[in-house]
Amino acid sequence: MSANRLIYLPLGGAGEIGMNCYVYGYGPVDKERYIVVDIGVAFPDMDSSPGVDLIFPDIAWLKERRDRIDGIFITHGHEDHIGAIGHTYAMLGAPIYARAFTANLGRRKLDEYGVGPKAIRTMEAWPETVKAGPFTVGFAPISHSIPESSGLVIDTPTGRVVHTGDFKLDTDPLVGEAWDPELWADIAKPGVKALVCDSTNVFSLEAGRSESTLGGNITKMIQSADQMVVATTFASNVARLKTLADAGVAAGRSICLLGRAMRRMVEAGVETGILTDFPSTISPEDALSLPRGNVMLLVTGSQGERRAASAQLAQGKYRGLKLKDGDTFLFSSKTIPGNERGVIRIINQLSEMGVDVVDDNGGAYHVSGHANRPDLQIMHQVTKPQMVIPMHGEHRHLREHSKLAASGGLQSIVAVNGTMVDLSGNAPKVAEFIETGRAYLDGSVQIGALDGIVRDRIRMALNGHIIVNVIMEGNEPLGEPWVDLKGLPEIGDSKAPLVDVLEEDLNQFMMRASKKTLRDDDALEGELRKIARRTAQSEIGKKPEMTVVISRLN
Amino acid sequence: MSANRLIYLPLGGAGEIGMNCYVYGYGPVDKERYIVVDIGVAFPDMDSSPGVDLIFPDIAWLKERRDRIDGIFITHGHEDHIGAIGHTYAMLGAPIYARAFTANLGRRKLDEYGVGPKAIRTMEAWPETVKAGPFTVGFAPISHSIPESSGLVIDTPTGRVVHTGDFKLDTDPLVGEAWDPELWADIAKPGVKALVCDSTNVFSLEAGRSESTLGGNITKMIQSADQMVVATTFASNVARLKTLADAGVAAGRSICLLGRAMRRMVEAGVETGILTDFPSTISPEDALSLPRGNVMLLVTGSQGERRAASAQLAQGKYRGLKLKDGDTFLFSSKTIPGNERGVIRIINQLSEMGVDVVDDNGGAYHVSGHANRPDLQIMHQVTKPQMVIPMHGEHRHLREHSKLAASGGLQSIVAVNGTMVDLSGNAPKVAEFIETGRAYLDGSVQIGALDGIVRDRIRMALNGHIIVNVIMEGNEPLGEPWVDLKGLPEIGDSKAPLVDVLEEDLNQFMMRASKKTLRDDDALEGELRKIARRTAQSEIGKKPEMTVVISRLN
Repeated sequence: MSANRLIYLPLGGAGEIGMNCYVYGYGPVDKERYIVVDIGVAFPDMDSSPGVDLIFPDIAWLKERRDRIDGIFITHGHEDHIGAIGHTYAMLGAPIYARAFTANLGRRKLDEYGVGPKAIRTMEAWPETVKAGPFTVGFAPISHSIPESSGLVIDTPTGRVVHTGDFKLDTDPLVGEAWDPELWADIAKPGVKALVCDSTNVFSLEAGRSESTLGGNITKMIQSADQMVVATTFASNVARLKTLADAGVAAGRSICLLGRAMRRMVEAGVETGILTDFPSTISPEDALSLPRGNVMLLVTGSQGERRAASAQLAQGKYRGLKLKDGDTFLFSSKTIPGNERGVIRIINQLSEMGVDVVDDNGGAYHVSGHANRPDLQIMHQVTKPQMVIPMHGEHRHLREHSKLAASGGLQSIVAVNGTMVDLSGNAPKVAEFIETGRAYLDGSVQIGALDGIVRDRIRMALNGHIIVNVIMEGNEPLGEPWVDLKGLPEIGDSKAPLVDVLEEDLNQFMMRASKKTLRDDDALEGELRKIARRTAQSEIGKKPEMTVVISRLN
Repeated sequence: MSANRLIYLPLGGAGEIGMNCYVYGYGPVDKERYIVVDIGVAFPDMDSSPGVDLIFPDIAWLKERRDRIDGIFITHGHEDHIGAIGHTYAMLGAPIYARAFTANLGRRKLDEYGVGPKAIRTMEAWPETVKAGPFTVGFAPISHSIPESSGLVIDTPTGRVVHTGDFKLDTDPLVGEAWDPELWADIAKPGVKALVCDSTNVFSLEAGRSESTLGGNITKMIQSADQMVVATTFASNVARLKTLADAGVAAGRSICLLGRAMRRMVEAGVETGILTDFPSTISPEDALSLPRGNVMLLVTGSQGERRAASAQLAQGKYRGLKLKDGDTFLFSSKTIPGNERGVIRIINQLSEMGVDVVDDNGGAYHVSGHANRPDLQIMHQVTKPQMVIPMHGEHRHLREHSKLAASGGLQSIVAVNGTMVDLSGNAPKVAEFIETGRAYLDGSVQIGALDGIVRDRIRMALNGHIIVNVIMEGNEPLGEPWVDLKGLPEIGDSKAPLVDVLEEDLNQFMMRASKKTLRDDDALEGELRKIARRTAQSEIGKKPEMTVVISRLN
């Protein structure tokens, strides 16, 4: 028995917010059996991943051990927890477990990859459990900003691990299950070895607020509007959709849903019986036929996404609907850091139309889905773990959460992606560092974040691209070099066309180049690059990316 | 006389925050004499302007009328107000007016363009004035986050215009002049036709706070640290530099300035007699020789700029100094929307080193330099203008400020860049729309924002770049097409090298292409593009940018 160990290994989500993927292992060293908790995505940005469609955790380590994976457990249906299951299913091959609503969303994803619905096994809430190798796992309901979020109760021969998933302490979440301290005290009774815990809001010093605090404010806000009202939030925040729709109805309006993701979420909520009393909705066509003061649109795109309904409405028509002077647009959301520019762009476009934009306004119209600092302390106190392992956060969040745990007398550790932690002893201990990273879905192809492909794109964006062509007949240049530019100014400091100056300088070189250089492709390319770079630097003050094509005719 | 009109025309800064440039004109229609207020820059970002070095307002309209410009007035030394004077001086040729500190900074800029110091004429504070064509202009001291900020009192035959510049109502700003309501009431006495007014903080509902509220908090914070303390803020915020340095000295520390911009600002402050009692500073070498608990570094890079001192310290050594576990890093600043990712990157890097990061913390360590909503109302009330023209703001700020003015019974208008407003009558009236835009400094070359150059770079970043080469001998292909890739995956869905698949498909086409197509460069290029795009789409699910080079040998 002493040879067996219990390990925790984050492959994504620890040291960043996004693409959550956590591994637990139990067994003899390097012969552990594994379960995986969540396989999510992160979203690309122009600064670091231009042109990329989605970002996955690099699961190469898991793929090499696929025969030792006994199950994949999805805590809830947010993209950063479930988004990559379609893409990774074939690589891992293990059964997926989730509760009904999450399973419903997951099956839609798998379907796109031609995987049948049985790949996901629907679980009931705790105390139901399932055995997966040496683990026994149950889904304990907890409140969050999407229905049926669950913490996982993971029993191992070494003791009980509680993996919180994303959570907040909401005793009245409107849709989905409430925070139930008795349930969690009960779960803690046999003793909790490790609490692996959401860290997102560790810097938020006040206790979190309930979803139920919003409805009244929102109804009042809508009642004060006399033209069209539009509200946006995360499509997956089903409770908020209901809060908004109910508020709209209370203010005497008909509700119209815009955006595919939003309609799909409501559909999944109804199919799984979670949304039994969502107000009936009207089509965009019907919305057009009603007086503006009687309509409320619920739309996607709270983060300024360029193709979502909110961005389209801000630019003009969407599904025949057009906003105008006197309309009201509510952001029932918080802007995720990094998305500010996109959101502000929309707000200004709406402002140009004369639309009044209402934002979070100090919490009147939005509450977070994550536990704040005092809530985390309550979670520590209720579950009384031997150790707290902070997850779901950037380094600063993990570190702060670890300090918070320590201040409560609990063992803790900052374990970022790739840190394999041995939980077997009385305190967490680093066992090993695993190489981890990000994989990009780029069009239809998976590429590595460090393959150099995206780096080359960024360089072309920053520096432009010069293409130099020379044709050689044997070892003699045939004609003069030919230059093409992309993303570069046509005229440089000498006021002559940049192409002409480059071609002239390159031709000068070709005419005086040694036979030895002309014979050797590498040497020739090197010289051509050097000259083109030097000329570009002096003409336009930049060092462009360079492609040199040497064609040799025989 | 009735033929004369007074006009206001923003060329930058109205409908955006940044690159301020405002024109006032007086005279017969299309024969007005002009003055220009501020010529600033904006900063590029990867999303919309990759590779660009600086963004200027497009001053083509002014250039065409350069013989009618009687002066350029710079309200204060922030880059978004003064940053483009070096670049534009030769194009406009008019004398520049500024107060001593601003002039000192401006002359350093002009010097880089080989323009002598006399191009800027140093002005004393109001009531000194200067005549510039039909205008008489004075610099009225007002508080802001850089010394000697001034509102302009612009007297015209049609009445007095007050152009606030950037301002806040700080009665104890520590460095620079205080808000003096009596002075401004005095200025208002003859009657103010138009108040052209900063709108930045119109959404901040509480009255602004004084610089003097920070020192005590910062001293306490530093006293509680026992290792190295680092603080960052805008280099140009000379008062804050003093607040921070004084707090450091009060806490028993020696001060070391890191970052060129910061040293230059303190230098300018001392040279112009504004900073008479700045604590003496030590060199990085001296800082290294002192106990860490006795040192405080003041560093550039509060906005996460990649090359600034803060970013360098977060990545490792800077000037021999290295942060470590237990050090404290204070952001005495607010992150400008759009800069969040860069700032968060630094915070996480510092967290990895074990450095405790302290941020604004609800206002304890930072106050804004702009007037909040209630302060704007005070400004309206003190100056009692006939009309308020909101400036220095995005569309949403201008619109809100205009509503605020209207709620106080004042005439107002939302005038974004390019809106020429006639101020002659009793209410502002749109006279004309002028085409405006942005010019980019790209390396050493000025390019237009709409030239397509930056668009091509963005496309290469999003889509990658395929280069296709074919050589024709007369009307027959000589050899097979040759393909190069940049920023694209090597292997596509068919698992064969993408280059090979592309070359094969292109070659197939070349072999069966009609004589007519082969003879016609445009037709041939069009077909090659079409095939390469189609193949790329099916192999990698992307549509790359394309450069096709057809070489014809005779």
